[in-house]
Amino acid sequence: MPIEHETEIRVRYADTDQMAHAYYSRHLEWFEQGRTELLRSLGKSYARIEEDGLWLPVAEAYCKYLGAARYDELVRVRSRMTMPSRARLRFDCRIASAGDGRAISEGYTIHAFTNVGGKPLRPPKWFADLVDDGP
Amino acid sequence: MPIEHETEIRVRYADTDQMAHAYYSRHLEWFEQGRTELLRSLGKSYARIEEDGLWLPVAEAYCKYLGAARYDELVRVRSRMTMPSRARLRFDCRIASAGDGRAISEGYTIHAFTNVGGKPLRPPKWFADLVDDGP
Amino acid sequence: MPIEHETEIRVRYADTDQMAHAYYSRHLEWFEQGRTELLRSLGKSYARIEEDGLWLPVAEAYCKYLGAARYDELVRVRSRMTMPSRARLRFDCRIASAGDGRAISEGYTIHAFTNVGGKPLRPPKWFADLVDDGP
Amino acid sequence: MPIEHETEIRVRYADTDQMAHAYYSRHLEWFEQGRTELLRSLGKSYARIEEDGLWLPVAEAYCKYLGAARYDELVRVRSRMTMPSRARLRFDCRIASAGDGRAISEGYTIHAFTNVGGKPLRPPKWFADLVDDGP
Repeated sequence: MPIEHETEIRVRYADTDQMAHAYYSRHLEWFEQGRTELLRSLGKSYARIEEDGLWLPVAEAYCKYLGAARYDELVRVRSRMTMPSRARLRFDCRIASAGDGRAISEGYTIHAFTNVGGKPLRPPKWFADLVDDGP
Repeated sequence: MPIEHETEIRVRYADTDQMAHAYYSRHLEWFEQGRTELLRSLGKSYARIEEDGLWLPVAEAYCKYLGAARYDELVRVRSRMTMPSRARLRFDCRIASAGDGRAISEGYTIHAFTNVGGKPLRPPKWFADLVDDGP
Repeated sequence: MPIEHETEIRVRYADTDQMAHAYYSRHLEWFEQGRTELLRSLGKSYARIEEDGLWLPVAEAYCKYLGAARYDELVRVRSRMTMPSRARLRFDCRIASAGDGRAISEGYTIHAFTNVGGKPLRPPKWFADLVDDGP
Repeated sequence: MPIEHETEIRVRYADTDQMAHAYYSRHLEWFEQGRTELLRSLGKSYARIEEDGLWLPVAEAYCKYLGAARYDELVRVRSRMTMPSRARLRFDCRIASAGDGRAISEGYTIHAFTNVGGKPLRPPKWFADLVDDGP
């Protein structure tokens, strides 16, 4: 720990608003894609994590907007995973233009560990091992 | 039959794209809200229909775009429900500006009847009664 | 100051995800609708604010998720506007179930003042008057 | 003509609804990504087409849903562009699972040619050349 990963996303027309940059909530979808790909890089996708009975619902989300993301721009999403406590998982995320490196946004999400249905639980050993072993 | 209903929706900033009108897929969300309110007017919300084991997944959707829906505009969604066959439910939808009546879009969705999980089934008697009794 | 406002929103099927509650970024759309209605209550909609050459792009957004928002649930969005500095506008937002008052989420957005195009500017006098006069 | 292109998209959690498959309007975002990549393959991105003063707003959209798109599934989007008349551009789109080829949806969008602002115009010569030259 920490575990890091990088992925790229193309800004869709659907992401834009009438200010001609990506609407602010869309960054949270990109954060999601960033952490999905980070988890996949550890050898177990979030889809399989859910199949194995563990949910990681978002408990908190924060985003600071540093520059516009334009339609059709390729953005680079850097995600970093840490476990600030036994009960919480945290992803820090930085988004920048893949072209010129210009900062677009940065933020984080904090996740709880729950069973399927939303009841809090302690992270299972296989999850801790996944984190300890790294990518 | 047919059963009709009307509801109003405020266009959000989130709905707009860089052409400064609502992005095309957002009309389908408004269609959804229209049929949700139509079903509620029959005395049984779609939420309760799902709780009672019936899903109405979308099998087809069509939309013709007639005029821009602008940010903050109040639009009127007129929905009309018919059962073109024993196995299909259809909602026709027309969206117009609530202010000046200007046409915005029109289209339809066609829905299958399935159980929870997606297996096709014949619509239960209580659903047929709901439709026959009307609002 | 502060200026407060309350509005209600119906959770759409489009808002839900496979955990069967509203996806986390959708809360930010509800925050938007909350501040749009607050501004309208002051006598000048955000649509007209933009027409008069002032943009209020989101500089920061935070949301804490306190309870699931379910499909078809009516939620109450309470918004509160303050000006923490001459260059920033802030909306605090609390979302609760309109039915039983159960807390759903709370957070804030911080906005810059820019011209059309995104160049920072000092808030014009008419905006300060709008804020001072209140609803 | 016709001109064809294929691209792949990963289904996001944001795309899912409480039926645990992608919400129906999200397919239209994938259609958008498909035609964006097709146009790029011709040597001029839609971003640059807009910069050169040509808009291609959606006039009609249709989608038939053939099978669920699941969270984290990789889907293959096949797009095919034709010009059914001098005033209309058409994209036919088929989405299938990239894994097992299972059909997910198929549909089309029909686009008008307008200037920036939405006034209809005849497609400029450079656009016709783009189409004639192919990828």
